[in-house]
Amino acid sequence: MSYARGELLYEGKAKRVYTVQNEAHFVWLEYKNSLTAFNALKKGEFQGKGQLNRNIASILFRELKKKDIQSHWVSDIGDHDMVCMKLDMVPLEVVVRNTVAGSLAKKFGIEEGTPLREPLVELYYKHDALQDPFISDDQAILLKFIESQAALDVLKAQALKINQVLKDVFKRVDIDLIDFKIEFGRDRSGTFFLADEISPDSCRLWDSRTGDKLDKDRFRRDLGKVEESYQEVWRRLSS
Amino acid sequence: MSYARGELLYEGKAKRVYTVQNEAHFVWLEYKNSLTAFNALKKGEFQGKGQLNRNIASILFRELKKKDIQSHWVSDIGDHDMVCMKLDMVPLEVVVRNTVAGSLAKKFGIEEGTPLREPLVELYYKHDALQDPFISDDQAILLKFIESQAALDVLKAQALKINQVLKDVFKRVDIDLIDFKIEFGRDRSGTFFLADEISPDSCRLWDSRTGDKLDKDRFRRDLGKVEESYQEVWRRLSS
Repeated sequence: MSYARGELLYEGKAKRVYTVQNEAHFVWLEYKNSLTAFNALKKGEFQGKGQLNRNIASILFRELKKKDIQSHWVSDIGDHDMVCMKLDMVPLEVVVRNTVAGSLAKKFGIEEGTPLREPLVELYYKHDALQDPFISDDQAILLKFIESQAALDVLKAQALKINQVLKDVFKRVDIDLIDFKIEFGRDRSGTFFLADEISPDSCRLWDSRTGDKLDKDRFRRDLGKVEESYQEVWRRLSS
Repeated sequence: MSYARGELLYEGKAKRVYTVQNEAHFVWLEYKNSLTAFNALKKGEFQGKGQLNRNIASILFRELKKKDIQSHWVSDIGDHDMVCMKLDMVPLEVVVRNTVAGSLAKKFGIEEGTPLREPLVELYYKHDALQDPFISDDQAILLKFIESQAALDVLKAQALKINQVLKDVFKRVDIDLIDFKIEFGRDRSGTFFLADEISPDSCRLWDSRTGDKLDKDRFRRDLGKVEESYQEVWRRLSS
C-alpha cells in the first residue's frame, strides 16, 4: 500500500501533521529534528533525530500491538514519517512513573531515582498557554476534558498496561523505564487508541548497568551526548 | 466544665496550640490576630481578628453538629480560645469549590465567578517548605499521605456534606460560599473529624447581593476593609 502526503494540518514542537491523499481517516506524521524543553523555552535539534524517534516509536508501537494494545500506528513511510489513524485527541497528557524523577522529585522533595511502590499515573491538561497544568481526575471530569470517571479509568488502565509492556521491552535491552508521557485519541466508534509518540523525547530511560540517562534530560540538563544517547536506544531496540 | 491551659505545643500562622491540663485527649487553640497570605510571604494583623475567627468557627462547628457532622470542637474558652479534641492530623488540605476563583481561575484561565456544574474537591499536601502542592488521589495514596482510596473517599464525601451544610448556613445570611479549605484528623479509633478552623481566613465568601468579597482575599489583594468584612460575616451569622 502506498500513501501520498497531502496538505499540512498542524505543526507541533516535534512533528508536522499532514493529511493523506484519498485517505480521510489517516494522517501523515513527519518527525522533525527539533528538540524542545520547558514548554519550548529551550530549543535545539540534531540531524537524524526525526528518523531515530520515528524508528523507535514504530518499533514500540509494534511491540505493543503484539500484546493487543492498539495504537494509531499504521505504517512507516520513508526515513522519518509515519501514517497513522486520524483520531479525535483527548486533551490530556498521561504520565506513568515507575521511579521518582523530574517534576515529581521536585514537587515532593524526593530524591531522583527513588523507586515507587507501584506505578503512578498522572494527568496533565494539554494546553501550551497554561503550561500543561497537572490536574486531578475530578478536575479532568468536571472541566470536561473527558466525560466520566469510567472513561478515565479505561485510559488509566490502558496506560498501566502500556507501562508493563514497555518496561519489559526496555528491560530486555538493559534500559530502565523511569517514566513516560503518552496521549490518547478516539476513533469514530469512541474506542481509545494510544497516539502521539513514544521515544527518548517522551520517556525517561536510564541505562540499567551504568545509570546513564538515554533521553531528553540530556538536552534539558545540558548533559551532552544527546544524539549518541538517542542512537544508543535505537541501536539496542533494533539489534 | 472548666479547663486550664497547659504548655505550648506548636505555633502556626494563625493559631497557637497548647495542651489542656489534666485532659490528655484535648488541645487548647488560641486564635491569633495575625493574617498571612502566599505561604506567609505577606503578613498583617488586626485587633480582634482572633476573636472574630474563633466566634465564626465556633458557630459553624455547632451548625455542622446539628447535621451530625463531627468536628474537633469541644468548647469555647474566653475571648479567642477553643478547647478541641486532640487528633492525629491527616497531612492534607481539602479544598471544596462551588465557583471558580483564586488558583483554579488562574490555573485554567477561567474567569473568577464562573459557577461549577457541581462542587469540586481538591487535595493539597500540607507542607510549608514544598508550598502545599496540589496533588491527585493517586499521589496521596502512593506517597502514603492517606492509606487507601476508600479512606480518601470517606474524606471527600465528608467534605461535600460539609459544603452542603455551610452553603445553606451562609445562604441564609445572604453570603455565597465560593470555596473553602478544611483539614481532618482522626481520633484513637481512626474516625475522621473535621479539624482546624472554618473562617473568612479559610473560605471565600461573597455578599450575595453586592458580590463584595468578605474574606481573606481583601487582605491578599489589598482591597481594604479587611476588619469590617470579617465583622460583617460575624454580625450576620450571629444575628
